[in-house]
Amino acid sequence: MITKYKPRPKRPAGELPAKNFSDQSAKIGAPDYQGSKLKIMVLGGLEEVGRNMTVLEYGQEIIIIDMGLQFPEEDMPGIDYIIPNISYLEDKTDRIKGIIITHGHYDHIGGIPHLMGKLGNPPMFMGKLTAGIVRKRGQEFNKCPKLDIQEIDEISKMQLGKNFRVEILRVNHSIPDCFAIIVHTPAGTVIHSGDFKIDYSPVNDKPADLNRIAQLGGQGVLLLMSDSTDATHTGYQISESSIGDEMGKIFEKLDGRIIIGTFASQLSRVQKLFDLAERFGRRINLQGRSMNDNVEIAHQIGYLKFNPRILVEDHELDRLPDNKVMIVGTGAQGESNAFLTRVVNGEHRSVNLKAGDTVIFSSSVIPGNERSIQTLMDMMVRQGAKVINYEMMDVHAGGHAKQEDLKLMMRLIKPEYFMPIEGNHYMLRAHAELAEQVGIPKNKILVADNGQIVEFHKSAGGGAIGRLTKDKVITDYVMVDGLGVGDVSNIVLRDRRVMAEDGMIVIIATVDSKTGDTIGNPDIISRGFVYMRENKELIQKTRMKVKKIVKDHDPRTPADDDYIKNKIRNDIAQFLFSQTKRRPMVLPVVIKV
Amino acid sequence: MITKYKPRPKRPAGELPAKNFSDQSAKIGAPDYQGSKLKIMVLGGLEEVGRNMTVLEYGQEIIIIDMGLQFPEEDMPGIDYIIPNISYLEDKTDRIKGIIITHGHYDHIGGIPHLMGKLGNPPMFMGKLTAGIVRKRGQEFNKCPKLDIQEIDEISKMQLGKNFRVEILRVNHSIPDCFAIIVHTPAGTVIHSGDFKIDYSPVNDKPADLNRIAQLGGQGVLLLMSDSTDATHTGYQISESSIGDEMGKIFEKLDGRIIIGTFASQLSRVQKLFDLAERFGRRINLQGRSMNDNVEIAHQIGYLKFNPRILVEDHELDRLPDNKVMIVGTGAQGESNAFLTRVVNGEHRSVNLKAGDTVIFSSSVIPGNERSIQTLMDMMVRQGAKVINYEMMDVHAGGHAKQEDLKLMMRLIKPEYFMPIEGNHYMLRAHAELAEQVGIPKNKILVADNGQIVEFHKSAGGGAIGRLTKDKVITDYVMVDGLGVGDVSNIVLRDRRVMAEDGMIVIIATVDSKTGDTIGNPDIISRGFVYMRENKELIQKTRMKVKKIVKDHDPRTPADDDYIKNKIRNDIAQFLFSQTKRRPMVLPVVIKV
Repeated sequence: MITKYKPRPKRPAGELPAKNFSDQSAKIGAPDYQGSKLKIMVLGGLEEVGRNMTVLEYGQEIIIIDMGLQFPEEDMPGIDYIIPNISYLEDKTDRIKGIIITHGHYDHIGGIPHLMGKLGNPPMFMGKLTAGIVRKRGQEFNKCPKLDIQEIDEISKMQLGKNFRVEILRVNHSIPDCFAIIVHTPAGTVIHSGDFKIDYSPVNDKPADLNRIAQLGGQGVLLLMSDSTDATHTGYQISESSIGDEMGKIFEKLDGRIIIGTFASQLSRVQKLFDLAERFGRRINLQGRSMNDNVEIAHQIGYLKFNPRILVEDHELDRLPDNKVMIVGTGAQGESNAFLTRVVNGEHRSVNLKAGDTVIFSSSVIPGNERSIQTLMDMMVRQGAKVINYEMMDVHAGGHAKQEDLKLMMRLIKPEYFMPIEGNHYMLRAHAELAEQVGIPKNKILVADNGQIVEFHKSAGGGAIGRLTKDKVITDYVMVDGLGVGDVSNIVLRDRRVMAEDGMIVIIATVDSKTGDTIGNPDIISRGFVYMRENKELIQKTRMKVKKIVKDHDPRTPADDDYIKNKIRNDIAQFLFSQTKRRPMVLPVVIKV
Repeated sequence: MITKYKPRPKRPAGELPAKNFSDQSAKIGAPDYQGSKLKIMVLGGLEEVGRNMTVLEYGQEIIIIDMGLQFPEEDMPGIDYIIPNISYLEDKTDRIKGIIITHGHYDHIGGIPHLMGKLGNPPMFMGKLTAGIVRKRGQEFNKCPKLDIQEIDEISKMQLGKNFRVEILRVNHSIPDCFAIIVHTPAGTVIHSGDFKIDYSPVNDKPADLNRIAQLGGQGVLLLMSDSTDATHTGYQISESSIGDEMGKIFEKLDGRIIIGTFASQLSRVQKLFDLAERFGRRINLQGRSMNDNVEIAHQIGYLKFNPRILVEDHELDRLPDNKVMIVGTGAQGESNAFLTRVVNGEHRSVNLKAGDTVIFSSSVIPGNERSIQTLMDMMVRQGAKVINYEMMDVHAGGHAKQEDLKLMMRLIKPEYFMPIEGNHYMLRAHAELAEQVGIPKNKILVADNGQIVEFHKSAGGGAIGRLTKDKVITDYVMVDGLGVGDVSNIVLRDRRVMAEDGMIVIIATVDSKTGDTIGNPDIISRGFVYMRENKELIQKTRMKVKKIVKDHDPRTPADDDYIKNKIRNDIAQFLFSQTKRRPMVLPVVIKV
């Protein structure tokens, strides 16, 4: 059920009718708080806690906030991404009353096409832009059911099941339609911040609703779950509009082509670029599929405002003077298939770098991508372009609240309990320290791990008492690799790592089952270990060793097969290590004829 | 030949007798400048230009500055490191008059044990501490010849061959005995900065000799080659002593154990830690082989000053109260075998983390290590320790000059030509822009690539004219992997990358040479592709496809072997991709019996 406020004419913007918890619980029917507890589980991939998914359970009812994916660690070669483990939910799909999505970034929506089928396709609630992106992504996956998406905004109220009444709070981030989620439960009100920053002058988005946040604080909030991404960074986050100003100053000095790399999802930045293009009389050429998709979706629903005539197609680029061109594309993280990489590799059909071009990296560096980006910048300057990145100038504002912003949020909401989420464990700890600094008692700060159950039960005095339990739901990584979801095991990964490190060698011994001798020389295939042509002696010695192992042990009985294989594996591995100090994977094959 | 200044009593410290180029050239005999050119080649691994090695050639004489290594990129799995390619020098070893080492970091000394044998083991010149480290490292390599090392300092003068007179200029960095190299040649004076920062109050080291730098500027410098590592960073580098102050403030508040991760080579930092331990009544426990080695070397020669009784062995640690303990170890980059990683993995014989411990990461993050370090910090806070890193506080000062320092250096030296070195190409370009800002004409700023020959020849007016030539010496990567030097080819690396991404599958078809049919089912070995037990159907289908391929083509003639193998490779690769969207390496083996 989804209802809209009918705004009463006299109520100032943002103000809600005063309510308190007992009112709420009276309204939402017959909450069985006597026997039930509110359980909260955060889920995420890897080291990040609770970025991708949050589960709230009360009695027999469940709601879910977000359903995202994580990109893999360096020691997970070949893995495309990691999605939340939903083992806990699989036999409880009838209890799921709804899924609320905070915003349209992949780490909050990327799991949807993979998981909604398994979860019984419950109704989903999200902002207009988020809905556009989720629908588009759903279409790309065969296995994704037709989604039941209901668009919401900051005046929406949803009653989900008997126990959850949900409201929406607008916050800022680097994409429009970013929500914090207010969940009124029989145990009290829980606020999930989503990804947020506080921006008093956002670009093409409404500012975070500070008045309403303060009002909520006045009404009593049981628990604040808050974004810890930048909890180790001092000070305040920069406003998106000051980035625009900074970019404008840079643009003024440029009379060659301007090429901008940014995230396709960073639509606030893209809006600013359209505004700047207008101001400086440049036309915009969009590059990268996700950039084109997102701009189209956002423009259709009126979230990106520009005159379509400002857009220019690839084939028209050459006809424009350089100082009339701005190219906006993907790949500022050095992603191998994105626009910027294809340009520097000479693989792009219409854009090549030339002297006079200025490439601006308008995004922060995601940890792990530093070297790819450095290489990209090197190739660009070698091709004559000038490169500007965030290190050199303020051309990127982060999307997350920093320490002072986080403290402001806590001061306004005044939650009884605080739970840092969305960050590595050390970031959660840093956020917990900030919470202590603003006066939240240590025993009311709950630093949970992925899957750990946080529980609120009724106290003797009538309030709710929260605690970290020792119970954990399953959170093993579910890795997506090609079409396979969850089928890449740790063994497969370990093998990939071993072969990446020192390669492998296959040894095929054909054995005469009558005499037990090898027939001919053993075949040897080596990949990623040594270059065989330049190591004939080593290979020949290896062959001789294998022949000797077979000769020394009669392989005519099946039981001996494993013995011989193990012997070859161990002895040859040791021999090769002594000769090369490398440890290739040794794969013995014994064929009896 | 190595001589020492006999300091004349009245000369203020750092001042040298006024000299100009014609004086010098008169002194150094009969320079054949008429016909000869000064050639300079910078060498480095990967994207970094001229970090590892610089070659100066005049007429028939060569000198070399530094001989370091580079750590591999992410797309070079299994490679230990990369050393300079010395193809150009291999037939010119008799011309090499000497090798001067600027300081004792691996990227400046790491190639020595591998290369000195091939270069005819010419005499080497370096500071006392550098010599200690190089000797120690040389002992660890069987193939390293007995090195002819001569210790030098800022009052040393070396005449190398007829054409090179070398002097030393003290600079600061993050290790004592860091030198810039002044090379007087018949073409003019060249200054190679080495790695440097300007520190007015270094720890346990003399400050960079600004007076002498200014004097050199007054005498006319043909070319300044200068460190570009931090050329994209605005402002001034922090002094090492202010770091100590900051650390002191942190230490004051701590009464648990303090565990510090830093680079073993960062001896200035280590000295400060000894001082702080003394001040706060803590004893020091050293961890990590390189940390112990370096401290021992530096202490022996008097470069680290501490009372040996402050040191405490592992077995004594438990007997000390926590607030009397400081553990200083390696691994602040998340290196897998270093002290900090072993501690958090529970693999260390005597140190375990516990609540109350504070771990301080006192080093900057080398690009590419971000995620390993985040994981390390996560594990630490999970084990109850508090973590402090450079993001949170000023606990690390970089070792390299930033933009304002770099401009100061150029202003003082006033070189005629400028050549940025030691950085990725985009850093060199940024440094070149700074040079323009301080008034060096654009045509006298030489941004060279690794191996590109920079040439100075005599002009009509008597001065030297420099230019970037189009000639390049060979600079292909020489990769070290285990005992192999330069034997890992691009093919081997490519295979490692393919197997890391999607694994591999070996298909062994045993064929009856009389009938041309397969005998039994083809054997299939898969590693890193899919977990075979859970993919029996896929494997069975693959077997059937292989049987059919063999059946369809008579493999009884040898010429058909390759055809069948190719057919299996291509068809099975395509089949597996259609089923899984993965591209494992397919290795067909056909055995005829």
